Amino acid sequence: MKVLVIGAAGMVGTKLARSFGTDRAADVDSIRLVDVVVPSVPAELAATDIATETGVLDLRDVAAVTSVLADRPDVIFHLAAIVSGEAEADLEKGYAVNFDGTRNLFDAIRALDGYCPRVVFTSSIAVFGAPFPDAIPDDYHLTPLTSYGTQKAMGELMLADYSRRGFLDGIGIRLPTINIRPGKPNKAASGFFSGILREPLVGQEAVLPVDDSVRHWHASPRAAIGFLRHAMTLDTAPLGARRSLTMPGLSATVGEQIEALRRAAGDDAVALIRREPDATIRSIVAGWPTRFDAARATALGFRAESSFDEIIAVHVADELGGRIGPR
Amino acid sequence: MKVLVIGAAGMVGTKLARSFGTDRAADVDSIRLVDVVVPSVPAELAATDIATETGVLDLRDVAAVTSVLADRPDVIFHLAAIVSGEAEADLEKGYAVNFDGTRNLFDAIRALDGYCPRVVFTSSIAVFGAPFPDAIPDDYHLTPLTSYGTQKAMGELMLADYSRRGFLDGIGIRLPTINIRPGKPNKAASGFFSGILREPLVGQEAVLPVDDSVRHWHASPRAAIGFLRHAMTLDTAPLGARRSLTMPGLSATVGEQIEALRRAAGDDAVALIRREPDATIRSIVAGWPTRFDAARATALGFRAESSFDEIIAVHVADELGGRIGPR
Repeated sequence: MKVLVIGAAGMVGTKLARSFGTDRAADVDSIRLVDVVVPSVPAELAATDIATETGVLDLRDVAAVTSVLADRPDVIFHLAAIVSGEAEADLEKGYAVNFDGTRNLFDAIRALDGYCPRVVFTSSIAVFGAPFPDAIPDDYHLTPLTSYGTQKAMGELMLADYSRRGFLDGIGIRLPTINIRPGKPNKAASGFFSGILREPLVGQEAVLPVDDSVRHWHASPRAAIGFLRHAMTLDTAPLGARRSLTMPGLSATVGEQIEALRRAAGDDAVALIRREPDATIRSIVAGWPTRFDAARATALGFRAESSFDEIIAVHVADELGGRIGPR
Repeated sequence: MKVLVIGAAGMVGTKLARSFGTDRAADVDSIRLVDVVVPSVPAELAATDIATETGVLDLRDVAAVTSVLADRPDVIFHLAAIVSGEAEADLEKGYAVNFDGTRNLFDAIRALDGYCPRVVFTSSIAVFGAPFPDAIPDDYHLTPLTSYGTQKAMGELMLADYSRRGFLDGIGIRLPTINIRPGKPNKAASGFFSGILREPLVGQEAVLPVDDSVRHWHASPRAAIGFLRHAMTLDTAPLGARRSLTMPGLSATVGEQIEALRRAAGDDAVALIRREPDATIRSIVAGWPTRFDAARATALGFRAESSFDEIIAVHVADELGGRIGPR
């Protein structure tokens, strides 16, 4: 089986590539990793006999998109996107990459006769926008409150239409907010959800701009990779024409996150969280989903964590070499 | 107030243009009617002192779209579309007109500084696809089963995003199936819903390809024009970021349509309906919505008919000069 990962230099893409080294369940012969910068090949993948190639791909470049499909990969992971904040700040770039880029990919696939690859498209819970019911059902309408969410929702619609027409065999994976997101703090409005755990776990300060009562929908990076790998080989017949799935996740408040941190790392770690209320972030976050009833995905075998203790344990195991505390 | 009607040569566009002659409630100084062919000016409109211009516009032509906005119309009705059957048969043309054309319009509006017109965008209940609950609520997800429905849903998403960003002040109007559609029988899969009334009302035969138990969602052409005119001046503040509205309509079975025909025109008219079951049409129609709970639109003052007796009476008044029977 030939696999193409578009957006392989990002956090999710890198972990997905690594998973093909650590989890050999799928019968993969070759992997091509592409992104707007040349992705690195994770050591775990390099250690296998899977033929791995890397390359540069900008989805806005139609000829390049066509060319990357020349060997007709069986599975295409489409993870590439301009993130929410940038898509909001630069409207044209957001539409060009997140929507037109996706469409370029789908159209290049369509142009190849007798070709119908599995396409795993990463969408996001940003396709939803407040007001919400207490638990958002699978048949709730998509009313994004960002251009990023709009572009993802438009991609979902084309994914479904092109699947219905038999051009591709698509699955849209609406990822929860990834927590604990590894790496440095960033300026994303959602950054604090990870920051208030990630930084204190290594003895550093973190800023909390919202109230403890703020509730949100989370899954670990490990769960996210599990979703994508499951989507790769899932029988799509039960999906019918409804090709995008809200992934399971954990609904938790900031307060519950903090108590899990306390159990894992003690009061000293919790004391590193500095409360700096920020009205702007507060109001952005107020429009975000808090809880889903992800019945369809759960029935199809997608699994996430069930507590923040578990999410923290995943981070400590996968990112901190099993050790909490200053580096 | 300056009004621009895009798609003014079609059935709805022509009736909308006429309405500005017969219903002077809105303070309209000038109207420009454009379509891919030069629209005619209805006599009722020509008889007014409203400055009326006609022209050709293909929404795929970006320069032409920009040019038609030069005098900054206050209200833009965007009714132009490739119909469902053609958009299914010609994928590229459907996306190019129904989606890219819509986007060209929105982007041309966005390019004009300090300009934020009311945009009334005709969408369709084709944005919905089976399976459905008994009555489809306003917050039900959009899972179109045609490329036409997909393109309309994508247009709705951009309309909402561009409204949220303040580029335009959009309202999406999801029209029910228009019944009784005037004119000749056509090849649309939905054609029989009108045909089984329209033809017998003038003493002609009509073909019924589905069972009497088939239920669907209807509104008269007069109601459709009422929706568009109401959308023109409605306060959009209560819409928030949710800019598209499922219009009220009448949920009725084919059998109920036939009984209304019997009451209006007698057994002889009903006898003109020839049952010719068609498995293809049956299966297409099986994916269509049957009933909505159009609570939001109803609360905002949109009104449709409440019986097929009323729908037939509207047709007899507006299309048949008040007289049932052979011409």
